Amino acid sequence: MTSDPLPLTDRTTMTRHRERQVLDRAALHALLDGALVAHVAVVRDGEPVVLPVACARDGERLLLHGSSGAGLLRLAVGARVCVAVTRLDGLVFAHSAFASSMDYASAVVHGVAEAVEEPVAKEAALRAVVDHLLPGRADEVPGPTPKELAATLVLALPLAEVSLKARTGGPSPRDGAVAGAPVWTGVLPLRTVAGEPVDAADLPAGVVASPSVRALALHLAPTVAS
Amino acid sequence: MTSDPLPLTDRTTMTRHRERQVLDRAALHALLDGALVAHVAVVRDGEPVVLPVACARDGERLLLHGSSGAGLLRLAVGARVCVAVTRLDGLVFAHSAFASSMDYASAVVHGVAEAVEEPVAKEAALRAVVDHLLPGRADEVPGPTPKELAATLVLALPLAEVSLKARTGGPSPRDGAVAGAPVWTGVLPLRTVAGEPVDAADLPAGVVASPSVRALALHLAPTVAS
Repeated sequence: MTSDPLPLTDRTTMTRHRERQVLDRAALHALLDGALVAHVAVVRDGEPVVLPVACARDGERLLLHGSSGAGLLRLAVGARVCVAVTRLDGLVFAHSAFASSMDYASAVVHGVAEAVEEPVAKEAALRAVVDHLLPGRADEVPGPTPKELAATLVLALPLAEVSLKARTGGPSPRDGAVAGAPVWTGVLPLRTVAGEPVDAADLPAGVVASPSVRALALHLAPTVAS
Repeated sequence: MTSDPLPLTDRTTMTRHRERQVLDRAALHALLDGALVAHVAVVRDGEPVVLPVACARDGERLLLHGSSGAGLLRLAVGARVCVAVTRLDGLVFAHSAFASSMDYASAVVHGVAEAVEEPVAKEAALRAVVDHLLPGRADEVPGPTPKELAATLVLALPLAEVSLKARTGGPSPRDGAVAGAPVWTGVLPLRTVAGEPVDAADLPAGVVASPSVRALALHLAPTVAS
C-alpha cells in the first residue's frame, strides 16, 4: 500500500491546474513528515469549523493530537473530517500581478477520524507523535501516566482519500508583450528554521541542551541549505 | 472599531486553556499581517472541506484570493466559512512527554464570505493582496487586465467574529517529582525565512533582483533576529 498511487475520486480529482496534482504517495509522505501542524475541518450544527492541530504520519494514517477536553477536536471523533497540511516553498515574482504566485505543496485528506482508545495502541500512537514532533525526546523524558493518557486525545485518519497538489518551478514564462525595461522575475524560497534554544525559566543551573533539542536545532539551522 | 476588543460569542469563547485566549485586536492584526496563507473551511454536501488560500488583511476584513475557476473557493461565496490563520513560534521541550507543547498564535474567523465584485473595489482588493504578499511588487509589474480581473476571485470576510489564541513563554513549571538527573527544558524558536532569490529560467541577462524582492529577502533574512 505504501507504494500505491494516491486514488482519484470525486473528492480528490482536481478540475483546475491538473498539472499540479501529484499521485506519488512518497511525495505525500515527504510533505507530512515535514509538517508539524494540520488544519482539521469538521461540521458543527451545519457550519464549518477549522482548527490547527499537531500532527504526525504513522504509516498510512495521519495522527492528530489534542486534549480530551478540547471540544472541537472531540467533534471529529467518528465524524467525517477534512484535514489540510500545507508547506509554503516560495514566493513567485512573475512578470505581472496576475501571474504572481507561490510555490507550495498541499495535501487534503478526506475521511472519518477515529480515536485511538486501546491503551497500548494509544501509548504507541502518542509515542509516534512525540517521535515526529520532537525526535529523540521520548527517550529523555517520562512518557504519559495513566491519568495523562486519559487526558489526551489521539485521532487516526487513514491516508486513503487524499489529494496532493504541488506548484514548483518559478514563474510562468514571461509575457512577450511586456513593455519597458524587463523586471526581475524569479522565486524567493521560504523555509522554516530554528533559532537558538531558549532555556526554561526554572532550568537548574548547569543543565545543557539535550541531544534531542541540539539535533533538531541543527536540522532546522538557518545556515544549512534547504 | 480598530481598537475594539475581539468579541466573546458562543463560537469564539474558549472553554479550555482560557488563559490562552487573546482579545486584543492589535494582536490579531499582527498575526494576520505576517500570514501568507489561510485555511478556509466550507461545508459541501454536508461534509467539511478545507483548503489553503493566499490571504491579506485589509482593515477589518480578511481578503482571500483565488481563481474564478477554483470550484472549492467559489463554494465559499455567500456561504458561512471558518478561516484559520496559524503561526508556529516554537517547539516546547518540557519535563515530560505530556507537558511537551508548541508556542503559537492562532486566529479562527467565523462569518459569511462575500465576493468583491465591483470592478474598482475588486482591483483595489487585489492590489491590497499583492501589497501584502509581495510588498512593492505592484509598482514593478502591470496590474490585472480586464480579462485577468474576471479570472480572479477575491473574497472578503469581516473580522467580526474571531477567536485568537496564543501560547507563549516556554514549558510549564517542572514537575518536582521528576527523578534522576534533570533534563534540559526550554523552547526551540521557529520562524519562516527566505533563501537567496532564484532567477526565472527566462530572465534576460543582466536583470538584477528588483527592490521588492530585495526588500522582502532582507525582511525575511535568516540572520536577522526574529
